[in-house]
Amino acid sequence: MKICVLPGDGIGPEIIAEAVRVLKALDLKIEMEEALLGGCAVDATGSPYPDATQKLALAADAVLLGAVGGPQWDNNPREQRPERGLLGIRKQLGLFANLRPAILYPELANASTLKPEVVAGLDILIVRELTGDIYFGQPRGIEVRNGERFGFNTMHYTESEIRRILRVAFEAAKKRNRKVCSVDKMNVLECTQLWRDVAIETGREYPDVELSHMLVDNAAMQLVKNPKQFDVMVTGNMFGDILSDEASMLTGSIGMLPSASLDANNKGLYEPSHGSAPDIAGKGVANPLATILSAAMMLRYTFANEDAAGRIETAVKKVLAQGFRTGDIYEPGMKKVGTRAMGDAVLAAL
Amino acid sequence: MKICVLPGDGIGPEIIAEAVRVLKALDLKIEMEEALLGGCAVDATGSPYPDATQKLALAADAVLLGAVGGPQWDNNPREQRPERGLLGIRKQLGLFANLRPAILYPELANASTLKPEVVAGLDILIVRELTGDIYFGQPRGIEVRNGERFGFNTMHYTESEIRRILRVAFEAAKKRNRKVCSVDKMNVLECTQLWRDVAIETGREYPDVELSHMLVDNAAMQLVKNPKQFDVMVTGNMFGDILSDEASMLTGSIGMLPSASLDANNKGLYEPSHGSAPDIAGKGVANPLATILSAAMMLRYTFANEDAAGRIETAVKKVLAQGFRTGDIYEPGMKKVGTRAMGDAVLAAL
Ligand SMILES: CC(C)[C@H](C(=O)O)[C@@H](O)C(=O)O
Ligand SMILES: CC(C)[C@H](C(=O)O)[C@@H](O)C(=O)O
Repeated sequence: MKICVLPGDGIGPEIIAEAVRVLKALDLKIEMEEALLGGCAVDATGSPYPDATQKLALAADAVLLGAVGGPQWDNNPREQRPERGLLGIRKQLGLFANLRPAILYPELANASTLKPEVVAGLDILIVRELTGDIYFGQPRGIEVRNGERFGFNTMHYTESEIRRILRVAFEAAKKRNRKVCSVDKMNVLECTQLWRDVAIETGREYPDVELSHMLVDNAAMQLVKNPKQFDVMVTGNMFGDILSDEASMLTGSIGMLPSASLDANNKGLYEPSHGSAPDIAGKGVANPLATILSAAMMLRYTFANEDAAGRIETAVKKVLAQGFRTGDIYEPGMKKVGTRAMGDAVLAAL
Repeated sequence: MKICVLPGDGIGPEIIAEAVRVLKALDLKIEMEEALLGGCAVDATGSPYPDATQKLALAADAVLLGAVGGPQWDNNPREQRPERGLLGIRKQLGLFANLRPAILYPELANASTLKPEVVAGLDILIVRELTGDIYFGQPRGIEVRNGERFGFNTMHYTESEIRRILRVAFEAAKKRNRKVCSVDKMNVLECTQLWRDVAIETGREYPDVELSHMLVDNAAMQLVKNPKQFDVMVTGNMFGDILSDEASMLTGSIGMLPSASLDANNKGLYEPSHGSAPDIAGKGVANPLATILSAAMMLRYTFANEDAAGRIETAVKKVLAQGFRTGDIYEPGMKKVGTRAMGDAVLAAL
């Protein structure tokens, strides 16, 4: 089992260190090698996704990523921004299926800005298409037309791109509550009319899963109004970016949420749902649990080691029950710990 | 003052009737004429925005709309769907500035799914560009390419389109708390990189207004996490569709929220933020207050009659204080009323 480890920027190195310690403690046959991605890679090599990293990522079975980005790179030319590294590795590895669970841990119910009765027991899986849509569509750019600047991008999907992500959603739903809600804007966008058509066709392959459709504006509302109506939500890259972040924040504890980005053969990139948090970087206070849980997802999806994945997840639940909290999820009466101490607690609970 | 009244579909005719009664009671020099838009227009003429309606709308000073749409037209060819009527009138009248307030009335604080301390006193104005972006961009369509279906749309903005909507946002902020948050996805989309560039340039014209920028995924999160951080939020047509609906739902009382869509000369179309609610249509239970408040916005923006607008708004506050509630905002202890009785209450309070 070869894992390419990409600490990245901001709090990335700190949180990755704890996930690596947890993986090592499991005594699996794992080889881990580190490389640069994002802003740190730009600083060292001029590219956010350098050749050496590409080589390692292509050769690995899975990639474990901390986070990328930070204000110091925001004014770089587009090709030298951290995000381009992330988009580059997703595209190059064909990681079209982004799985983002929004789960509210009972111990952290107070962290949500929503009323407890609205979010208690929340467990949604957002399945976001990750290598198509307006993110990668050509033509795109900024040009001068008729004497003024003109910015343009292209949204597009082929039916096979839509079908394969819908299948991922249906397969996931079969292991959950057998409900898929497909989100589009078919009343305005032809591209997403095709999305809806193909979703309906693909649904016929899964008669035991209930398929519904929702317009993206309504989905943004329903997540606030009654999030527990959803089991699996599937949508395109752009809408998925927005809705998955909204759904994560419903829990109030985004520092707990892992994510997986998979190719057609379960090779995957695993990363926390949160960002690089430059404001607290280097202070040893970041919450490493989302990254540790991302490592668990890696063991489950890429290495089909349900046992090891479950051990990590149980350990995380245990440290929550024991009252360990990093600052982002702290409430009075709990034991406030830093990044390293939280890692220690998980190791002890393993 | 010539007003074109478009009841539309679903609950549209019921809620419009109450707004018309309120306008008549104000004893202003108003001429109102009704016409068809949406599904009812498709049924009667084959077109969702028939010629007769176009003539009336073009000649009027303002348009008052109920709502359009319903499941019975969902499988029509695209040109015969209710939404095309709405998009058609927006484009033809040049209604580029969509103002959508998200206000939580103190009396309705319980209606929100968010905790009271998070939303109490909420007062955001979303300024959404309404005649550009991927909504109207060419080329678009569904074609067969390489033996499979391929759906595509085009997102685009010119710098003058961006500048004029930013100015609307800045002008609105000057009358409020002097903060504008411009939302884009500049880290991925060139079109919205131009948006950010022009937002920064336009901001220099308004040194007394604080301008900030936020990525759309983060904006979707921040609306859930801490909505009161926002004063005016300005964004493009697509992101605005999603974020304004999310923001409305934070209040839990979308049946209270009006909207205005303005051209360059303050001609406007005014409509409630909610939809046509086919499930309760014809039952006389819909909440007419958003439509009545839309009529107030019309008096303020198009007819510069702040006095009459204020009278309506004060009357609405009074009926809430008196305990009148339609089903959507009802809680035990209040007086449950239907559409007509709510209209009566507003008339009595005027
Ligand atoms: C950093 C950015 C390019 C990225 C995206 O938009 O996909 C991020 O927001 C995410 O959701 O992983
Ligand atoms: C009905 C639809 C075309 C419309 C839109 O997307 O603009 C609606 O959602 C709105 O926000 O007014």
